[in-house]
Amino acid sequence: MKIAVLGGGNGGHAVAAELALGGHAVRLWRRDAASLEPVRKAGGITLVAEGKPAKAALAAVTGDLAEAVTGADVIVVATPATAHEDVARSLGSHLTERQVVLLTPGTFGAYVMAREIARTGGRMPLAFAETGTLPYLARLTGPSEVKVPVRAANLPTGVFPAARTKDVLSTLRQLYPVVRPCADVLDTALTNAGPVIHPPLVLLNAGAIDRGRFDIHVAGTTASTQRLVEAVDAERVASRSGLGYPAPHYELATYYDERRAAEGLYGAGARARLEASGLWNETLTFEHRYVTEDAALGLSLLESAARTVSIDSPAISGLLLLFGALLGRRLSGQGRDLAHLGLGDLVLREVRELLHDGWHSHLWRRAIK
Amino acid sequence: MKIAVLGGGNGGHAVAAELALGGHAVRLWRRDAASLEPVRKAGGITLVAEGKPAKAALAAVTGDLAEAVTGADVIVVATPATAHEDVARSLGSHLTERQVVLLTPGTFGAYVMAREIARTGGRMPLAFAETGTLPYLARLTGPSEVKVPVRAANLPTGVFPAARTKDVLSTLRQLYPVVRPCADVLDTALTNAGPVIHPPLVLLNAGAIDRGRFDIHVAGTTASTQRLVEAVDAERVASRSGLGYPAPHYELATYYDERRAAEGLYGAGARARLEASGLWNETLTFEHRYVTEDAALGLSLLESAARTVSIDSPAISGLLLLFGALLGRRLSGQGRDLAHLGLGDLVLREVRELLHDGWHSHLWRRAIK
Repeated sequence: MKIAVLGGGNGGHAVAAELALGGHAVRLWRRDAASLEPVRKAGGITLVAEGKPAKAALAAVTGDLAEAVTGADVIVVATPATAHEDVARSLGSHLTERQVVLLTPGTFGAYVMAREIARTGGRMPLAFAETGTLPYLARLTGPSEVKVPVRAANLPTGVFPAARTKDVLSTLRQLYPVVRPCADVLDTALTNAGPVIHPPLVLLNAGAIDRGRFDIHVAGTTASTQRLVEAVDAERVASRSGLGYPAPHYELATYYDERRAAEGLYGAGARARLEASGLWNETLTFEHRYVTEDAALGLSLLESAARTVSIDSPAISGLLLLFGALLGRRLSGQGRDLAHLGLGDLVLREVRELLHDGWHSHLWRRAIK
Repeated sequence: MKIAVLGGGNGGHAVAAELALGGHAVRLWRRDAASLEPVRKAGGITLVAEGKPAKAALAAVTGDLAEAVTGADVIVVATPATAHEDVARSLGSHLTERQVVLLTPGTFGAYVMAREIARTGGRMPLAFAETGTLPYLARLTGPSEVKVPVRAANLPTGVFPAARTKDVLSTLRQLYPVVRPCADVLDTALTNAGPVIHPPLVLLNAGAIDRGRFDIHVAGTTASTQRLVEAVDAERVASRSGLGYPAPHYELATYYDERRAAEGLYGAGARARLEASGLWNETLTFEHRYVTEDAALGLSLLESAARTVSIDSPAISGLLLLFGALLGRRLSGQGRDLAHLGLGDLVLREVRELLHDGWHSHLWRRAIK
């Protein structure tokens, strides 16, 4: 397949390299094209997985969005969720109705991007799809090298409009055989592990993070942080159930409890490989995706999902309040809060209908206002 | 004066030793009298302050409350605030109306103890008084030795009933010349530094605390923790102002900013002396007073004070929600929440009147129900 990968961070490099190694023609785009110069010069990206390096040749490395996207079967958006709206505004004039736009992960960005394109008069693709989590736990280790100690073992994936799920997932399964179908993109977004694990780890280690390099997944994973992760996860699962989404819920416990690892997002041995890699020993700030994406966007979505079905969410709300206090702005009701995204006036049945029919729904006009 | 000191922790030993060294006849009581055996054997307590040890001889060391309290002019309650109600139930049968009961600090415990004595049919003293903060930053360093690197430089003190403020403070000033008058015990409770500084330091260093000995005041005091302390303090000061209590507000900034230290609770050089002492390098748990007293009782009081005057308190509420999630129980609306203490049905003017007249107020019956 012809693939456009948008985004030149850890995830973008991992996606581009692995799909290219899988035999697909991959064009990598990043707005700041200069930063991709080392990849162009090297003639591709070296992907290091299972301890073995492999050099992936790309079909193009470009800062020109039209060049990346035109003719692509699948456009993978591997940017932070904070960039979804901005990417949507640029993308709308290049899309055709045969293309699939895949967000890895989405955090409900499939709906957000469609809405932004509609609001700015762009063209729609066949569908948007989003994964619940990252397909790769990856870190750049050089200007054209990315290390992937862990791949997703189960990749919950939703389609917007959900009416197109079957066709779209059969396409995406050619890229990711571990794709697992979801009812819709909200179902998928509510499997995202990022907002569950990262905000507790960052907040309860904020003092250590201030002092310099720190690995939240190794030194930062302690009894208290796990207790808070579990509390957030319990609220997430209760919200999913309240909204009528069935198991599997991809509980975070599957990451901490090796006996349950096979049912989890990352499979057997994931935690040990991530910890052993040492790649997450980083200098973090409150500008990191763990905060700007997982707390500000992910938790506001989770909080509003809980509110929609009257689930008490003290751990999620507490995190939003304290990250808000630390950032000096209010986070609750912002970001990916469902009401903030135009879904506040719909009853649950209408939200489901809208997610199923997408821009063909009679409710779409109300949603994009 | 004859002084009874109730409580055999860091604070109780410091109070007993310093007042004894000041020439007062001090009787030290602790329910668990066996743990005071070393003090009895040593013939007193060694107090180490300004680098010099001094041996304080006590008039009595006892597990018999009547023996400690009978004939005392001032009864100092130096227990955690979590013990106030329990101490009140025992104390009610021993008090006379010439005695002053002083809580160091109070966290609104003066009202709480009076209410508990009234509810259990005990006798009232002349008045209760409470300090806003600890008179001594102290740690036990041996079975009969206590170190005091920092003494309070300004000790906000309130009296319940506030009508008796003048007389009672003139008595207490003989013990603590740094006593500063407050309008009433709520005014005083809202100067407490404990709930402002300790919960942020503990929560944002929870990962480090889980790993063993840790000094939250040294390694744990970082840019993020200070930012959260400042956010909590701003909410506290806004609530004080909203309730009509005037400056000084004893801002936590006076502790961090040496140029303002003289107006603060602990005076010049306090932070440096505390840090240099190394005494706060401790193994903490969620059973520590920082959580059971400062978070569960202190923050619930602050949150309800903010709510009473419609002040937004995201930092305080966020801390209550997350400590609640970590402890597995709801903290908001519990503890020292004003409504939880029987003051929820009173308007602000009535609260003030009740705090002024105490058990002579026509509102007292409603409050103690």
